[in-house]
Amino acid sequence: MGTQPSQTIIQDPWKLVKTTVHTDFGPKSSRSMMEHIRTPKVENVRLIDRTAPRKAKVGTLYLSSTHTIFVENNPETRRETWVLHSMVASIERPPTTPSGSHLVIRTKNFQAFELLIPQERDAMDVQASLTRLSHPEKYSELYCLSINPMANKEEREESWAFLDLQADYRRMGVPNNLWVGTPANSEYRLCDTYPSELFVPKSATPSVIVGSSKFRSRGRLPVLTYFHQDTLAAICRCSQPLSGFNARSQEDEQMFQAIMKSNPGSEYIYVVDTRPKLNAMANRAAGKGYENEDHYTNIKLQFIGIENIHVMRNSQQKIIDMGELKTPSMGDFLWGLESSGWLKHIKAVLDAGVFIAKAVAEEGLSVAVHCSDGWDRTAQACSVASVLLDPYYRTMKGLMLLIERDWVSFGHKFSHRYNHLDGDPKEVSPVIDQFLECVWQLSEQFPCAFEFNERFLIQLHRHVYSCQYGNFLGNSQKERRDMRLRERTYSLWPQLWKERSQYANPLYRADHTQTQGMLRPNTTPYCFKMWKGMYSRLEKSAPPRQLPEDLLTAVKEETQQLEEELTNHQERIAALMRMKQTNSSAGQKKMSKVCDDGLACPTGDSTVRSPPLDYSPSQREPPGPAMILPLGPLKGSDSDDLSSACSDMESGVADLSSRSSSGDDSKDTDEAVYCAA
Amino acid sequence: MGTQPSQTIIQDPWKLVKTTVHTDFGPKSSRSMMEHIRTPKVENVRLIDRTAPRKAKVGTLYLSSTHTIFVENNPETRRETWVLHSMVASIERPPTTPSGSHLVIRTKNFQAFELLIPQERDAMDVQASLTRLSHPEKYSELYCLSINPMANKEEREESWAFLDLQADYRRMGVPNNLWVGTPANSEYRLCDTYPSELFVPKSATPSVIVGSSKFRSRGRLPVLTYFHQDTLAAICRCSQPLSGFNARSQEDEQMFQAIMKSNPGSEYIYVVDTRPKLNAMANRAAGKGYENEDHYTNIKLQFIGIENIHVMRNSQQKIIDMGELKTPSMGDFLWGLESSGWLKHIKAVLDAGVFIAKAVAEEGLSVAVHCSDGWDRTAQACSVASVLLDPYYRTMKGLMLLIERDWVSFGHKFSHRYNHLDGDPKEVSPVIDQFLECVWQLSEQFPCAFEFNERFLIQLHRHVYSCQYGNFLGNSQKERRDMRLRERTYSLWPQLWKERSQYANPLYRADHTQTQGMLRPNTTPYCFKMWKGMYSRLEKSAPPRQLPEDLLTAVKEETQQLEEELTNHQERIAALMRMKQTNSSAGQKKMSKVCDDGLACPTGDSTVRSPPLDYSPSQREPPGPAMILPLGPLKGSDSDDLSSACSDMESGVADLSSRSSSGDDSKDTDEAVYCAA
Repeated sequence: MGTQPSQTIIQDPWKLVKTTVHTDFGPKSSRSMMEHIRTPKVENVRLIDRTAPRKAKVGTLYLSSTHTIFVENNPETRRETWVLHSMVASIERPPTTPSGSHLVIRTKNFQAFELLIPQERDAMDVQASLTRLSHPEKYSELYCLSINPMANKEEREESWAFLDLQADYRRMGVPNNLWVGTPANSEYRLCDTYPSELFVPKSATPSVIVGSSKFRSRGRLPVLTYFHQDTLAAICRCSQPLSGFNARSQEDEQMFQAIMKSNPGSEYIYVVDTRPKLNAMANRAAGKGYENEDHYTNIKLQFIGIENIHVMRNSQQKIIDMGELKTPSMGDFLWGLESSGWLKHIKAVLDAGVFIAKAVAEEGLSVAVHCSDGWDRTAQACSVASVLLDPYYRTMKGLMLLIERDWVSFGHKFSHRYNHLDGDPKEVSPVIDQFLECVWQLSEQFPCAFEFNERFLIQLHRHVYSCQYGNFLGNSQKERRDMRLRERTYSLWPQLWKERSQYANPLYRADHTQTQGMLRPNTTPYCFKMWKGMYSRLEKSAPPRQLPEDLLTAVKEETQQLEEELTNHQERIAALMRMKQTNSSAGQKKMSKVCDDGLACPTGDSTVRSPPLDYSPSQREPPGPAMILPLGPLKGSDSDDLSSACSDMESGVADLSSRSSSGDDSKDTDEAVYCAA
Repeated sequence: MGTQPSQTIIQDPWKLVKTTVHTDFGPKSSRSMMEHIRTPKVENVRLIDRTAPRKAKVGTLYLSSTHTIFVENNPETRRETWVLHSMVASIERPPTTPSGSHLVIRTKNFQAFELLIPQERDAMDVQASLTRLSHPEKYSELYCLSINPMANKEEREESWAFLDLQADYRRMGVPNNLWVGTPANSEYRLCDTYPSELFVPKSATPSVIVGSSKFRSRGRLPVLTYFHQDTLAAICRCSQPLSGFNARSQEDEQMFQAIMKSNPGSEYIYVVDTRPKLNAMANRAAGKGYENEDHYTNIKLQFIGIENIHVMRNSQQKIIDMGELKTPSMGDFLWGLESSGWLKHIKAVLDAGVFIAKAVAEEGLSVAVHCSDGWDRTAQACSVASVLLDPYYRTMKGLMLLIERDWVSFGHKFSHRYNHLDGDPKEVSPVIDQFLECVWQLSEQFPCAFEFNERFLIQLHRHVYSCQYGNFLGNSQKERRDMRLRERTYSLWPQLWKERSQYANPLYRADHTQTQGMLRPNTTPYCFKMWKGMYSRLEKSAPPRQLPEDLLTAVKEETQQLEEELTNHQERIAALMRMKQTNSSAGQKKMSKVCDDGLACPTGDSTVRSPPLDYSPSQREPPGPAMILPLGPLKGSDSDDLSSACSDMESGVADLSSRSSSGDDSKDTDEAVYCAA
């Protein structure tokens, strides 16, 4: 299998295995995983269409060090289906039947492939190989580290320079005279799951910073994550206090005072504990818990009630199972949806974001958010609040930055949660899945407010699991630094940016009221839907339908084309008018002069058009009276004359065009003379 | 209340009471209903916002003979809320509170208004009056008959001539050599709930027609409702046979043979019994039932399982109740949706339509559809099938015609089902609601396939209940004829047509593949949603959000405007080129000649643009090479010259424009001379 294509983009019928492989698999990197391949190739395998089991395709199955590949025998199509090992969630082998052994491969993005392998022996080998290949035991076995990224150092370094988190803090006005950077966590001395660069209230002294960190679970002290320039209110995040039933820390209390002081004029701050109150209370027995309002003056404590990672894992499994049902009745579906609890949990996360965003934007109050360790529910709540508050996070780059900040830099445990290495299954939970779904639910409610479409979110979800890029490896910034991932892997972001035309939402309008300012979603249950694009097996296996978004994209292109044509025409009219007028009044000699400086655009007013997707017709200035020239119907007999005139015109002007684009003003009257000839 | 505005269109905050009143209430017509008004006016009434009860508006309540009207005291807004008496479903009066008596008015289109009336006495009077006013006892009390439509005879007659059902049969190629009209039901001799004009198989003799009618419940023999020109297969409709456990009719059996014969080459027909099989079997005890396949050769019997009107009535009540919940949890919502069974029933109706449409279009087989009497489930199944089969029924006029045919003309009992007169509550059922919802669910799945938007369906639903127009009064064509409704009322259809810009779906594309041919919807449960626009109280009371459709409509207008501008410019360029060229080659004198016949469009090719909402850029021909003239940037110093030249040009051409539009070719060289001056 060393010869299988590697520089290809392959689109399989389930849209799953569209993989972009950056470099060839070096012989060394492949070798370690190759050991686990018991059988590299099985012939006469059937890939069963699970929506129509009789429509199986016959072909050959290959196992490479990175992919399972099915290649159809049909010489006309030779369709290939690639499944990345790191996307494989499970491989089941139901009891062998007379026609052979079935293998059901389920992926981490909720797809299932069913194979029928003639010999039981082969099926067992494939299953054993795949089980091992899809359960890497060390990071070096992961895709992004097993390929050889040293090949293109410059490209790799550029990929990591694509996003600049500090620039985003500067965009929101930080540091300023309220919030300042602190070196306290350089070399991760204070908190090894936090980023090295932290922003804290200006009035927080080093002893307050250190003391507060000591009083918080895993040292995760309150620091800034979002600053709202309009109201000067901030969102801070931390972990639960080590308060037990009665412990307190003066420094921690002072830290909360400092946070309030950094919002001039405010009289209190909200402390949002995103856990159900019962869970928070139970933590006190372990010496943790939540803030005692008697000790912390000027805080208002608010519980939100997002369930823990175990509840979420089980809930998602139920909705996946439901999406797998072959012919569910309406009752099965609605009952399954209800009993999974999934939409209830999505609503809870969104409600948390809404609470925080309203506090910041409407009440002008700062909010400190935590859960237990402050890396799951806290990441969800803070990032949803940012999406609601700041239109920038509704753009593609903005959402990338938000994930870099609230998830990657603040130590969301990607490798544990998404099971990158064979680890504790109780650590696994779809935490970022829920964030992405909140964004999707919002985009359904505000169809013009997001620059990206559903595919962008689905692709993000895929790459959190795929390990094709280095962004989401490990569990903290420190771990990624220790692994030297920037030297050994590529960053995902520029790749998504390159593909951005696929992810554009044609309804997005940067200047729309929905796009400006805060989103205020309706969070009554009616407003939540099952995310078919993510969970419905049928949706994924159905032949792709022409989506309204695709049509809209075409409309948008059409409009742009029209705008361009119009501009060309306006320029042309201006030039012609100018020629004609001068021509008429001063005769042949004058005309060449006019062509010199006149074969040019009319005034800025008529060429600067409004942007093509500005929906409001009233914003487009109508063509000025000077540009209107209604004309009568054409007489057929004139058309020959006209076209010959036009083609003369064009060949004469082609030269000019190439010159004028260089910005050169040098005179050349050839084309004018030609026109007039 | 004789002086309340009557020629007004009023938009209330709930979008409910947008009423267009055609004529003044004549004193005579009002008088009879006026008797029932115990108190025409109550002051200091509060209209409570049910989403935010503290935001009540204070104003005056009026009762007219046709409407309940609330006029806000706030002198700045003086907002009026009108509720048509015929739209009122119930008036509840909860126990009196210290602040007064509450009245909750619920409407037939699922809205609720809550009033707080200071004096209990007044509240009781209003309730008693409204109860009577909203329960008319005879047709003459209904809105469309209580106003005076004689005022404008011509307009009224025109309104009824707007749709021509026979023309729609001709459009589908009927009559032809397979299906012919029969005079058998003239004067409704054969079946008083059928239309007088029927189409039957050419080979069906009068005795077969009469015999089949006698063997069918209420004489509703099998007749044609839709003919599919591509496959020559037909959809016929009828009622159940009077077969009991063993009765048979040779003529009825011959009728089914004749139906098969009218589809040349087919070897059998489907008989679709839209009832659950158990229900159909139960009917045999009453001497009714379904076709015995031993007696009817060449039929295939298919049961579909749409529940009866009582099940549907209860199911809808549950979904209405759920829509009324103030703060439902996700569980309340999903459990309520499931236990209402509503979406299951919608799916059953859609499945029936899909079965019939596939039989006709894919198998090329004719289908005879019935339920019990053939006026409820049969109307649903046949009309859904027509929408799936024929793109015309996905246009506004097409849907109007379809409702006229499968519902109005074939004797769907509008007055009984929608409780137009105070009648048997067991006769009431949301049968057409379900059809309209099927169309809505389809439009969600095929967003480009329908000419109309959701508002059109909601407006249709409203008018089925409102009795503001004569279309849906009575229970059969005969009843409407006997009431002389065409002489006494207006037809709804031209009114909707006038308002069509409000109902346009901007994504609709007449030439799209979705729009052509048959729709093949996915009917797995995931694909059904609660119709928020119809049932969600919150959706209705929320401030109207800017919908993507509205934005799209703006884009569409924008594109159209651009196209027009482009055409103008092209015309202008052609004219200028022509002028210039002739000018240059032949001097000043020649130019005026060119203007004579040259101030006209260029060849058809470059002015005939593709339609503005043709999404496919490839279908637009690029501007021909003759029309491309890329030009360099403008020099600022030239702009003055240019604009003065242009304005000269325009004032000179204004005259020409008015002349050329009259199609007059008479020569006038003024403008050319002017241009050249």
